Amino acid sequence: MTLEITYYGANMPVNLPLQSPQQALTTWLAAFPERKLESEEIETINAMHRVLAEDIATDTPFPEFTRSGMDGYAVRAVDTVGASENHPVTLEIVGEVPMGGSPDFEIGAGKAGVIHTGGMVPAGADAVIMLENTRLSGTRKLEVLQPVKPGKDVSPMGEDVVTGQVVIPAGARIRAGEIGGLMALGRTRVNVVRKPIIGILSSGDEVVEPHVKPAIGQVRDINSYTASAHIEEWGGIPLRLGIVSDEIEAQRKAVASAYQRCDAVLISAGSSASERDHTAQIIQELGMPGVLVHGINIKPGKPTILAVCNGKPLIGLPGNPLSSLIILRIFVKPMVERLLGLPMNPFQPSVRATLTQNLKSNDGRENWWPIRLVQSTEGIQAEPIHYKSSLIFSYLPAQGFVRVPGNAAGLAAGNPVDVYLI
Amino acid sequence: MTLEITYYGANMPVNLPLQSPQQALTTWLAAFPERKLESEEIETINAMHRVLAEDIATDTPFPEFTRSGMDGYAVRAVDTVGASENHPVTLEIVGEVPMGGSPDFEIGAGKAGVIHTGGMVPAGADAVIMLENTRLSGTRKLEVLQPVKPGKDVSPMGEDVVTGQVVIPAGARIRAGEIGGLMALGRTRVNVVRKPIIGILSSGDEVVEPHVKPAIGQVRDINSYTASAHIEEWGGIPLRLGIVSDEIEAQRKAVASAYQRCDAVLISAGSSASERDHTAQIIQELGMPGVLVHGINIKPGKPTILAVCNGKPLIGLPGNPLSSLIILRIFVKPMVERLLGLPMNPFQPSVRATLTQNLKSNDGRENWWPIRLVQSTEGIQAEPIHYKSSLIFSYLPAQGFVRVPGNAAGLAAGNPVDVYLI
Repeated sequence: MTLEITYYGANMPVNLPLQSPQQALTTWLAAFPERKLESEEIETINAMHRVLAEDIATDTPFPEFTRSGMDGYAVRAVDTVGASENHPVTLEIVGEVPMGGSPDFEIGAGKAGVIHTGGMVPAGADAVIMLENTRLSGTRKLEVLQPVKPGKDVSPMGEDVVTGQVVIPAGARIRAGEIGGLMALGRTRVNVVRKPIIGILSSGDEVVEPHVKPAIGQVRDINSYTASAHIEEWGGIPLRLGIVSDEIEAQRKAVASAYQRCDAVLISAGSSASERDHTAQIIQELGMPGVLVHGINIKPGKPTILAVCNGKPLIGLPGNPLSSLIILRIFVKPMVERLLGLPMNPFQPSVRATLTQNLKSNDGRENWWPIRLVQSTEGIQAEPIHYKSSLIFSYLPAQGFVRVPGNAAGLAAGNPVDVYLI
Repeated sequence: MTLEITYYGANMPVNLPLQSPQQALTTWLAAFPERKLESEEIETINAMHRVLAEDIATDTPFPEFTRSGMDGYAVRAVDTVGASENHPVTLEIVGEVPMGGSPDFEIGAGKAGVIHTGGMVPAGADAVIMLENTRLSGTRKLEVLQPVKPGKDVSPMGEDVVTGQVVIPAGARIRAGEIGGLMALGRTRVNVVRKPIIGILSSGDEVVEPHVKPAIGQVRDINSYTASAHIEEWGGIPLRLGIVSDEIEAQRKAVASAYQRCDAVLISAGSSASERDHTAQIIQELGMPGVLVHGINIKPGKPTILAVCNGKPLIGLPGNPLSSLIILRIFVKPMVERLLGLPMNPFQPSVRATLTQNLKSNDGRENWWPIRLVQSTEGIQAEPIHYKSSLIFSYLPAQGFVRVPGNAAGLAAGNPVDVYLI
């Protein structure tokens, strides 16, 4: 399974069997457990995008009382039969339902009560007639201009949910609507899955910290910072553990320490292959099953390592900035989601646009192209950005990526494509 | 412009001219300035999704030195002419380029140097031949199995960007790639537009704080919390200012204070129309031009107020939870983006799915339907969730919304639709 690359001693094995990105992801995710993180109680207002660690059930029905869905008048439907613009039915207004309280009157035959949206429907009434379908004909005289059916614009108690119903299940990712639902139940604190801690190691003798002025031949570490930003966005806690040299003992120590401290480990490669080789070897020593994927049939991003050691995922990221970004998105995002106990999400939103150039996948690898989106009179155009994956700035004008399947002849200009936003 | 709703005194004006959501948004955004917030300096690692307040230019070329794009050997291309598997060209390996340093050798005729991806190409070499296209035939003898052209797998100094080039312009929203770009330049701190402070007032005599057990007729405040969660997600600072009663003087005071303190104000309606009427009147008193839109041709979400007073936007949100969520997305998201100085984003990602039921827009209003997405053997299905906008829990299983245009006959089952994820 390990890839041997040496320079003076032996030749590099060529034509390694590379898995497709989909195969590689499936293999990898299947090898580590879906849910193992503890929960923690936090303020609901801070729970956006967190994963619920408990079933949330109602302790009352919703609505808690039968309420009006409109501004208008609570009436007995039977009293409105035959009402029309020319032959209105006249009712007597007996009171107004106070907001936040209960009405101190009932609706008898021929009577009506002023009611506001959300107000409690008084006893005796079985419908609300909206304001627009009425006319006042005197201080307490209401003309009804249309008949209403029983139940019209009335939300019965428990219409939304009944008592004891699970309204948000454990494992759900909390969105704004769920925050509203929790608040409706008075749940101002909530148990969520703690964020997984993802250790990030940078490696490479040529790599220096961003605040350092690189000497000749050196480059600043950027990939551990892009990884960090993405991991935070996706719901993990990034833990940058600094830059480790290409020397195998230093790497072994650093990786083992990160593996002990974290829920998952990213090793952001320096750019040399010999150093990546150390990575696979070192990971393999940490536990079973070890390295599952070493090299993926994707461009850019081929030199990626996917591993699981004793249930804990590790990933070796390629050193080129664009490759690293693409691998983060394709593999690290679902890894974080998996650690949080979320299912694989088959619903990936995209912007549909018209491709402006042919894109080939002539090497049989799945190609990911950075795309600049342009709004034109003929709709949204997808302009591929020609790039080298080693470049840092050239692809920044891209809004997204398009995927060119490895087994296809490519994508033809003029056709619609799905652009996944960055 | 103001909508008169009284219950005992006069009839409600009907058939108000309602603007379409698109018209309403355009009218509103055009009335407040695109950029007026100050900048602040923050750590680049915390700058994800922030808006850049300065042009970022390079102070060196990138790459800073001519470097290898591959693991392999630095060579003179002319030496490899005619090389093949059967008739390899043999070169002498004269050294290895150290990572993070400069080579202490040059490449003369018939010579090659070991080089790693990112390594500095030695003087004399004009190409890199990848490892896979070579073979070692002795300790220092290299067999080249394919010719390479000059420049092959070499990134010349400045290939990405030259010195003084603006690589990230002011006004750009910072993504992971931009964080990488900033780090590559050693910019560990960066000037960004400060987050706009969005004041959120809840109103309604029936509304109580989430930690309070509602008395009969009362409901808990949920909309100010969903608004808060979304505003934070979209790049603003939500400032919840509590619940104000329906009484006009209390409202006037609360709105005026919020207007003074914040960059924009949301007034989350209680559910009664009379109370919403106060909102429009109170906003109108704050400054010119005042209320621009009162009532939008959308369902749910019609009773929405859009206003600008002396360049500061205010919005009156409908009281129903689902209406509020939809109006937040359609109006408050672009409002926050506008305050940050971002242009209108025409690229809204969606999931394409097959509609399972006919959806009508028979009242001529633009309808937004909550959609449950289901992965089936025939692809992704979009199942509309039938709802009342007053309900809190019934629509939570939705992953997104579909838009049914107001002027259309509706959307027919079996057709593809764009589902905008929540």
